[in-house]
Amino acid sequence: MPLRYDTLTFASDYGRVDEFVGVVHSVVRAISPDITVVDLTHDIAAHDTRAAGLLLARSVQYLCPGVVLAVVDPGVGGGRRGVAVEVGDGASVLVGPDNGLLAPAVAMCGGATRAVELTNTDYQFESPGPTFAGRDVFAPAAAYLCTGVALTDLGNEVDPATLLPGVLPVSHVDDEGDLVAEVLWVDRFGNAQLNVDPLEVDALVGDDGSVELAFGGITRAASRAVTYEAVGAGAIGLVVDSYGLVAVVADRSSAAGDLGLAAGTEIRLRALSDGNADVEGSVGGVSVNIGEPRRRP
Amino acid sequence: MPLRYDTLTFASDYGRVDEFVGVVHSVVRAISPDITVVDLTHDIAAHDTRAAGLLLARSVQYLCPGVVLAVVDPGVGGGRRGVAVEVGDGASVLVGPDNGLLAPAVAMCGGATRAVELTNTDYQFESPGPTFAGRDVFAPAAAYLCTGVALTDLGNEVDPATLLPGVLPVSHVDDEGDLVAEVLWVDRFGNAQLNVDPLEVDALVGDDGSVELAFGGITRAASRAVTYEAVGAGAIGLVVDSYGLVAVVADRSSAAGDLGLAAGTEIRLRALSDGNADVEGSVGGVSVNIGEPRRRP
Amino acid sequence: MPLRYDTLTFASDYGRVDEFVGVVHSVVRAISPDITVVDLTHDIAAHDTRAAGLLLARSVQYLCPGVVLAVVDPGVGGGRRGVAVEVGDGASVLVGPDNGLLAPAVAMCGGATRAVELTNTDYQFESPGPTFAGRDVFAPAAAYLCTGVALTDLGNEVDPATLLPGVLPVSHVDDEGDLVAEVLWVDRFGNAQLNVDPLEVDALVGDDGSVELAFGGITRAASRAVTYEAVGAGAIGLVVDSYGLVAVVADRSSAAGDLGLAAGTEIRLRALSDGNADVEGSVGGVSVNIGEPRRRP
Repeated sequence: MPLRYDTLTFASDYGRVDEFVGVVHSVVRAISPDITVVDLTHDIAAHDTRAAGLLLARSVQYLCPGVVLAVVDPGVGGGRRGVAVEVGDGASVLVGPDNGLLAPAVAMCGGATRAVELTNTDYQFESPGPTFAGRDVFAPAAAYLCTGVALTDLGNEVDPATLLPGVLPVSHVDDEGDLVAEVLWVDRFGNAQLNVDPLEVDALVGDDGSVELAFGGITRAASRAVTYEAVGAGAIGLVVDSYGLVAVVADRSSAAGDLGLAAGTEIRLRALSDGNADVEGSVGGVSVNIGEPRRRP
Repeated sequence: MPLRYDTLTFASDYGRVDEFVGVVHSVVRAISPDITVVDLTHDIAAHDTRAAGLLLARSVQYLCPGVVLAVVDPGVGGGRRGVAVEVGDGASVLVGPDNGLLAPAVAMCGGATRAVELTNTDYQFESPGPTFAGRDVFAPAAAYLCTGVALTDLGNEVDPATLLPGVLPVSHVDDEGDLVAEVLWVDRFGNAQLNVDPLEVDALVGDDGSVELAFGGITRAASRAVTYEAVGAGAIGLVVDSYGLVAVVADRSSAAGDLGLAAGTEIRLRALSDGNADVEGSVGGVSVNIGEPRRRP
Repeated sequence: MPLRYDTLTFASDYGRVDEFVGVVHSVVRAISPDITVVDLTHDIAAHDTRAAGLLLARSVQYLCPGVVLAVVDPGVGGGRRGVAVEVGDGASVLVGPDNGLLAPAVAMCGGATRAVELTNTDYQFESPGPTFAGRDVFAPAAAYLCTGVALTDLGNEVDPATLLPGVLPVSHVDDEGDLVAEVLWVDRFGNAQLNVDPLEVDALVGDDGSVELAFGGITRAASRAVTYEAVGAGAIGLVVDSYGLVAVVADRSSAAGDLGLAAGTEIRLRALSDGNADVEGSVGGVSVNIGEPRRRP
């Protein structure tokens, strides 16, 4: 029997020290031996559904169609629902807790076409305790979907409109004309991705090619550049990152480390004091779109 | 030729920074290209055979039948034996050093049915130095078993009774009626698993649903709860974890971090001072059974 | 269609916290679904091309033939070239930035037989920003090579002699007869691999089986031993490691931690003061050969 889905992408906050990730792989393999599992990451900070939601949203357009198993689940065993959310009329299904984690990625895929609550215990493990739903509820559901079990066999259909939305902070222009943005993500290299579209920044760039950044009582000039290298040693730059958003960066150094930026830091962008002050007319609350559709080679 | 075993589960203390794990994967693949390798974890603390033995024991009932390659090997190159231990009359084989690491998992599988010492160098790599037996001895043995090489071709058969036993601490009741337990494991989320069966705790729970914990000169009340959520913010709870043992937990916080618990910490459980003091008659040295057989969906 | 190469080995400094590794896996799988990806490591220190080059050189003889995708790329998007370097007349191809990263492994394989610059954008993703060449340039190139795309279809052929060489420090004997060596690598267990051949050390060993180590103003005696165990608790030893080089080690302890050694530390080896001082004649600048060809079982 061919698989209904042949790729299962797996992301969690389980870490790599305990056996959680390996046990989920084993459970999936026992149910669906021919599936290929792609580990997206398992080192999301414990319980950080916001970071996980953003990570999934950044990644989703690059994932192979199939089932996405996502588990960051601080309310495990409690009142939150377990769900499977179909997108693209069945092109892919996202499985995990209904706590906002899946919402940004679902939105990136054009919204849910169907959703079920994982109520059918025939497709779950009986467990001595309710603390490892990844193993006992979500992994079996994901693996059975791959084998061809129908979405609606996993539980009661629910209205996608009732799924908990994710919160994606949107930048705005304040009364003084500052573009008020937020750090969405600091990556391993210390690049700080902002919820800012390149066009918003370009409107602020002065004759010298720079913009003023203000955060935590500090102001710094940052040059608009195409590559890290072009920023130059010791300087701060703004580049369009690989997801199409503006990131605060340094060349071969951690901008976030140097400046004390973290996910959630508010950061204001404005024209440099002696530069172009005509800001209000040119920028606005452009909605952030993580990632542009890409051309496959 | 079909594989004799089609899953190789791999656990070690190699970490992920060096190339050790990847090189072992390559060695396995060179010998047995069609095998699927499931990584259980490679971040066991260096040389911690106790933690590794417990991890394997917790995991083993969830693993696909096949070969388990486990390498935590502080005595590498020295006097300790390398072994392959068959369980379930050939259902699975565990390969690794004979230093107690494999013993708890072997016991969980009903004991060894056969064992060999890995003395046949025809199934080993010649190595410039004896420090990477995972690559040169254990991985080839595990991979050849998958291809159908007979257990007894890997070396001399040894009496399973001569394999080094693992040490699993057992809780007991002392003269004052305290249940003297030990933290077996602190997971990524700070849950502290005890060598305590739920029935032992239930006998200590007072009218208010709580038990007293004593450790390191501190006493704390802990409520018996079903989920993290039910413990409530800022409080300490005792839940039955996903392996069927009692764990000290907090809701969306690290109980072990908050209380200073670590693997090996002694912890005493007793009825709260003003509650039921009739402890001695109701609890005893119940032997710990990590994990109950589960119903597969 | 059979794959041209059926193994893709992947090493990077992407870390495991962000989605970079998982996204590259997805990109590879979308292009070449039947490839097996072996992760060598993704926890090379950010931008550390020297450590990555050494890691690849240590590993390469144990890797399955195929494509090696290696990404440590501080100059991403800038002037450095992206390349694919063929070794063994097509036995394997290494793909990555031309910044010295690939050179030691290429040398271990007998040198490049052909090389191309990755200039053909038909085999690359169009990207909003130039910061993730692993995803947009290197992974597609590696995956297409596996499917049978010709090396020369990926871009313009370049003279292998123009590829940036790696820098491998070579030990030497100074005027006072000291063997001046360097720590190449400290592994997870704190073993410090030196750029020293066992024969060089053996010439320095005194009657008591020891050598003097001098570094950072400290001198320590180290015993030449075969295994960690033979070094004995609390002592420092020199063993031949699993790659055939001399390593400074301790038994069940971190030698590098105890002594303050790190990659790049200069360390002098000499006969113990009261021992054999006839050093100059017996040792020389032996060129380091990471790993001897091994006999496959």
